Amino acid sequence: MRALTLKTTLEYCDQYPTPEPAKGEALVRVLQAGICATDLQLVRGYMGFQGVPGHEFVGIVEEAPVETGLRGQRVVGEINAACRVCSTCQAGRHTHCPHRTTLGIDRRDGAFADFLCLPTENLYPLPDDITNDQAVFVEPLAAACQILEQVPIGAQDRVLVMGDGKLGLLCAQLLHHVPCHLTVLGRHHEKLQILAQRGIHTHQDSHLPSRGFDIVVEATGTPDGLAWASAYVRPRGTIVLKSTCHEQPTVDVTALVVNEITVVGSRCGPFPPAMALLRDHAVDVQALIHKRFPIHEGNKAFDWAATNGVLKVIVDLTQEPEQAEGHLTPGDARAHDPK
Amino acid sequence: MRALTLKTTLEYCDQYPTPEPAKGEALVRVLQAGICATDLQLVRGYMGFQGVPGHEFVGIVEEAPVETGLRGQRVVGEINAACRVCSTCQAGRHTHCPHRTTLGIDRRDGAFADFLCLPTENLYPLPDDITNDQAVFVEPLAAACQILEQVPIGAQDRVLVMGDGKLGLLCAQLLHHVPCHLTVLGRHHEKLQILAQRGIHTHQDSHLPSRGFDIVVEATGTPDGLAWASAYVRPRGTIVLKSTCHEQPTVDVTALVVNEITVVGSRCGPFPPAMALLRDHAVDVQALIHKRFPIHEGNKAFDWAATNGVLKVIVDLTQEPEQAEGHLTPGDARAHDPK
Repeated sequence: MRALTLKTTLEYCDQYPTPEPAKGEALVRVLQAGICATDLQLVRGYMGFQGVPGHEFVGIVEEAPVETGLRGQRVVGEINAACRVCSTCQAGRHTHCPHRTTLGIDRRDGAFADFLCLPTENLYPLPDDITNDQAVFVEPLAAACQILEQVPIGAQDRVLVMGDGKLGLLCAQLLHHVPCHLTVLGRHHEKLQILAQRGIHTHQDSHLPSRGFDIVVEATGTPDGLAWASAYVRPRGTIVLKSTCHEQPTVDVTALVVNEITVVGSRCGPFPPAMALLRDHAVDVQALIHKRFPIHEGNKAFDWAATNGVLKVIVDLTQEPEQAEGHLTPGDARAHDPK
Repeated sequence: MRALTLKTTLEYCDQYPTPEPAKGEALVRVLQAGICATDLQLVRGYMGFQGVPGHEFVGIVEEAPVETGLRGQRVVGEINAACRVCSTCQAGRHTHCPHRTTLGIDRRDGAFADFLCLPTENLYPLPDDITNDQAVFVEPLAAACQILEQVPIGAQDRVLVMGDGKLGLLCAQLLHHVPCHLTVLGRHHEKLQILAQRGIHTHQDSHLPSRGFDIVVEATGTPDGLAWASAYVRPRGTIVLKSTCHEQPTVDVTALVVNEITVVGSRCGPFPPAMALLRDHAVDVQALIHKRFPIHEGNKAFDWAATNGVLKVIVDLTQEPEQAEGHLTPGDARAHDPK
């Protein structure tokens, strides 16, 4: 099958072995997959991952045990493949299973390929009214939804989202539906416009009030994000940390103690609320798609995704090489959307 | 008056000006004061503090508005002098008042002197059954009690206290009264023995199970404490940060995100529960007092306090220079306890 593979560099391969589903797993034919900031970090050495990256996907189940009813279904999938038997899994924290593999991130080939395997319990059949483009955002939007699982947000709370990258824009759109006083701080006018058009209060490169926020969602994608967030959160306030970076920053731990800040690490989240938000068009993802490429142009796709100011780049597995002349616009893509 | 003063070095001065209480403040004659790890940090440059250090004290109110009924009372005092009118104070977070001064730490002369001033609302009259030695521990024990204000602890929770310094020993003794599975990790046999004798489960220099604890209280006093705590806390567990250090460590922020750790900075706490614990002898502090010095031997007292393995050193303001021959034992001190 076709795949993008990562050893020291990312390479396109058209004869990569098709994965074989283990017991309890399904084989999924990938339709399209999104390039995430984590994928860019993986190429720079994060996690020491080798194999096929990619974890934001939509696909069709090709093989699965009959009793699951999954065969032929269009699905998205949670990326952590847990053992489901250890004490961590039994305690309901299967995304933290110490034996887990993670799709396209840790010891499990991912979605930049014609096929991937995941445990059947990880898969969520999609309703018809969620497009393939929307479906690619279920995983990152679920990560945004995780904030609400972890931190109570009150109607009087002043909430700051730091970062206007893909995750920041999703967090902001999500929190726009939560009663609170929301501000988004970013660096890119055109990205912030996506939010402003939806009535969200944005600031570009501004000096916001020091210690002026009850809750700060750090989605800058940079190692300095925690230090910036510490400057904006009030004493006894909460910082939700979303960024994963290869680099380890120096942190003023004493300031966290003196100001009694709570820092909450936040990673993967629940798929059902994310799917509901997309189905209801409560979160707009179409404006976040900047470009799409066929898989054999994977390196070009990653270069684009790493370009400053570019949001989501999609790797489209439904395009054959001969179709790949010129890049499709989101409108074109919808026209031949295989759904 | 006599005082220990800090500019670039700590010096004894016998003609330091007696402070004058501002409106709403009381003048307190200090009986004795404890040397805290923060005081040792101040001497090393932390906070850039200049003036009289010292914030763990017991004293007699010399001057106070009559209507407060404080005059002549033996008291301890909360160390943050807040404005009580700003929005932070109005929100009940007066220990985080941006206009606050802090006794012996930030723009307010402290307790290593014959007299200090504090707002009258900071003072707590002591019941007769709390000795002066116990009273010196009200402030640090209140800091330990702050943990319970911030983090819910369940009976099934595996709780690790890291550090067998003064604060670690107080946190451990406090948590021993909270239903949970408590372990204390330290480096000093004789300090851990104080806990073991009270039936507390201790480990010295052990390799404890990685990710084996639901809650880790980091009271190591070293910049590396957060990294160590991160290794012991389970995914989605909580680290309570107690150490303030002059140095800023490098932190694996990504591990906090991936493992969804919650880090809670924790500083000053409520005096009433600390006073109740001491009155009821639920926390033993006598074993934590290693030595006491008259104030003119302040430098010697600080040297002792900075010695590896030494716990609390007390500066005794009731000793005149001529009494200072030889160091008193805790037993001797109780004999002439001025209470």
